[in-house]
Amino acid sequence: MLAIGIDVGGTSIKGATIKTGGIILDRFSMPTDKNLEPEVIVGELCDIINSLLKEKHYDEKIAGIGMAIPGSFNKETGVVVNCPNLPKWNGFHLKEFMEEKCHLYVKLVNDADAAALGEAKYGSGKDANFMLMITLGTGVGGGIVINKELYNGNLGMGAEMGHMVIVNGGRECSCGRKGCLEAYASATALIKETKRMMEAHPESLLNKHAQELGIVDARVAFLAEKDGDKYAKEIVDDYVMYLSEGLLNYCNIFRPNIIVLSGGVANEGENLLGRIRLYLEAHHYGMKDSPRVEIKQASLGYDAGKIGAAALYL
Amino acid sequence: MLAIGIDVGGTSIKGATIKTGGIILDRFSMPTDKNLEPEVIVGELCDIINSLLKEKHYDEKIAGIGMAIPGSFNKETGVVVNCPNLPKWNGFHLKEFMEEKCHLYVKLVNDADAAALGEAKYGSGKDANFMLMITLGTGVGGGIVINKELYNGNLGMGAEMGHMVIVNGGRECSCGRKGCLEAYASATALIKETKRMMEAHPESLLNKHAQELGIVDARVAFLAEKDGDKYAKEIVDDYVMYLSEGLLNYCNIFRPNIIVLSGGVANEGENLLGRIRLYLEAHHYGMKDSPRVEIKQASLGYDAGKIGAAALYL
Repeated sequence: MLAIGIDVGGTSIKGATIKTGGIILDRFSMPTDKNLEPEVIVGELCDIINSLLKEKHYDEKIAGIGMAIPGSFNKETGVVVNCPNLPKWNGFHLKEFMEEKCHLYVKLVNDADAAALGEAKYGSGKDANFMLMITLGTGVGGGIVINKELYNGNLGMGAEMGHMVIVNGGRECSCGRKGCLEAYASATALIKETKRMMEAHPESLLNKHAQELGIVDARVAFLAEKDGDKYAKEIVDDYVMYLSEGLLNYCNIFRPNIIVLSGGVANEGENLLGRIRLYLEAHHYGMKDSPRVEIKQASLGYDAGKIGAAALYL
Repeated sequence: MLAIGIDVGGTSIKGATIKTGGIILDRFSMPTDKNLEPEVIVGELCDIINSLLKEKHYDEKIAGIGMAIPGSFNKETGVVVNCPNLPKWNGFHLKEFMEEKCHLYVKLVNDADAAALGEAKYGSGKDANFMLMITLGTGVGGGIVINKELYNGNLGMGAEMGHMVIVNGGRECSCGRKGCLEAYASATALIKETKRMMEAHPESLLNKHAQELGIVDARVAFLAEKDGDKYAKEIVDDYVMYLSEGLLNYCNIFRPNIIVLSGGVANEGENLLGRIRLYLEAHHYGMKDSPRVEIKQASLGYDAGKIGAAALYL
C-alpha cells in the first residue's frame, strides 16, 4: 500500500509518497509563504500532489494523505485551530479543502506526534510497545506512542512533554509557568546558558568555539567541554542533570520500553546519551525491581514527520 | 454477568461478588496475617469464596476473580514480584494457586490501578475517555485509564504518579530522589509540615485541633485554617500550590478529561478541590486554547479497588 506523507514547516512544506514499511519513493517540496492565504499555499500543494500522481502512475492504491501541521486542529471537523507560526491557517478547513482538490482521504496530525509515530513504527522505537519521543530543539516537545498508536489526550491537546515543571519557581518558561523542563533541556536553554557563561568568562574556550563556528548554538558547550574547558563542563553537567531528571519522571510515570531523543541537541549522540544512561542508572530507584528504559537517538531524521503522517494509513 | 473483586490490604482482605454496572451483591472479608504463609491466607480466602458461591447459587455466570494486590506481579506467570507490606507473598504463584482452588479464572491487578479502573468505569470518571486518578494518602499513587483501559507501562511498572520530581533538589522522597510530588502532596507530607509548624508555633490553633482530635492527621491544618490560624493557612496554601503544580504537569502531559482525587486528603472535598481549580485556572497557560480538565473527588470510596478488580471481567 502507498500513502502520501506531508510535513508542514514554517519555511517549507515537504512531502513524499511512502510505501508500507516506511519506505520513501518520491519526494516533493515547496516554500511556505506565511503571508499568503492558506487556500493559495495548500492549493499549490494539491497541484504538486496531483501532478506527481498523474506522472508516476503508481501500481498500488494511494490510501490517503497524512498531513503533519505545526499546531492543533479539530479532530472531528479537520479545521486548523492554532498554528502559531502560520497564523493565517487558523480556522482553515484544511481537511475538506484538500480532500476536494485531491480526491483522496486526508488525515491531520500534529507534527511532533507525526514524528513520534514515524519513529515508533519505522525508526528507533520499532521494536517497542511503549515509546516516548522527546524532542530537544527550540522547545522541548514530543509524543506518546502506546502499542503503535498515538496518545495525545482530549482533543489532541496532550503530550506537551516540555511543559512539566521540574524546578518549582525556577527559570521562566515560554508557557508562563516557572521551571518547566523546556526551560532547562531545550537547545534554546542550552544556548542561553552558553552565552551567559561566555560573557561571565571571556577566557573560556566556549568563546573560541563559538567564533570558529560563527554562531553560538547547542554544539558550542559540548565542543569546549571536549577540550577540557571547566565552564563548558559545568553547563553540560547541569544540562544532563536537568534533562535526566525530566526523563526519570517520564520513566516513573510511563515506564516505557524506550525513550527516543530527537532534535538538535540529540545530534550529540552517544556522548549525550551515554551520560543520560549513567544518570538514570545512578538514580534508578524508580526503576528498582523495574525494567530499565532504553535511551536511543531518533533514526529517521527530518523524514520522521512525513513518514509518521503517512503511517496513519500504513 | 458477575465477577468476584478482591482487594488485598496489609491488614485485611475484602471482596465481593459484583454485577455488571459495578453493583455490589455480597461482601466478604478476612484479616491479613503477614506472618502466615500465603498458601494459608489465600487458601482460607478460596474457602470463603467457594462457600459463598455454594451458598448463593447465583443465576448468572461468574466470569472470574479479579485480585487487587498492594504490589507488583508478573503479568505472564501470575507470580507475585514485590509486595512491600506482604513480603512472604513475593514469589508466590498467586494466580495458579487460586485458579486451582476455585476453578475460576483469576486476573491480578495492582491495587492503585484497580481503584483507578473502578472509578473510571463506575465512579467519578464514568463519563470520561481519559482519566487520571491521583491518590493522596500515605504516599501519592494513582492510575492512568485511557478509553476505560488501564495503562501501566512495561510489565505494569508505570503509573508511579507520586514519583515525579517537581522541586529539583527539594524534600527527600521515600524513593531516594529529591523533590517528588509525593514529598509535598501526600497526607504524610502534610502531617509532617503540620507537626513542624506546631512545634515552631505552640500558640497556633493547630495545637488546639490536634489535641481535640487526639491525633495529628491531615485534617488538622484544614480545621485550624478555617478558624483563621495564619500558620495553618501557610501550610494549606503551600500544600495546594505544590499539588496543583503536579496536577498542571499531568494536565500538560496527558490532557485528560478528568483527574479524580482519592485518599485521605481528598476527603477535604470541595474546600480542597475548589482551590485546586482556582490554581489551575490562574496558571492555565498549558490549557490555553485547550479544553479544561475536570477535577473531582473519587466516589467509590473503599470499594473502588474491589469494583475495579471485578471490572477486569465486566
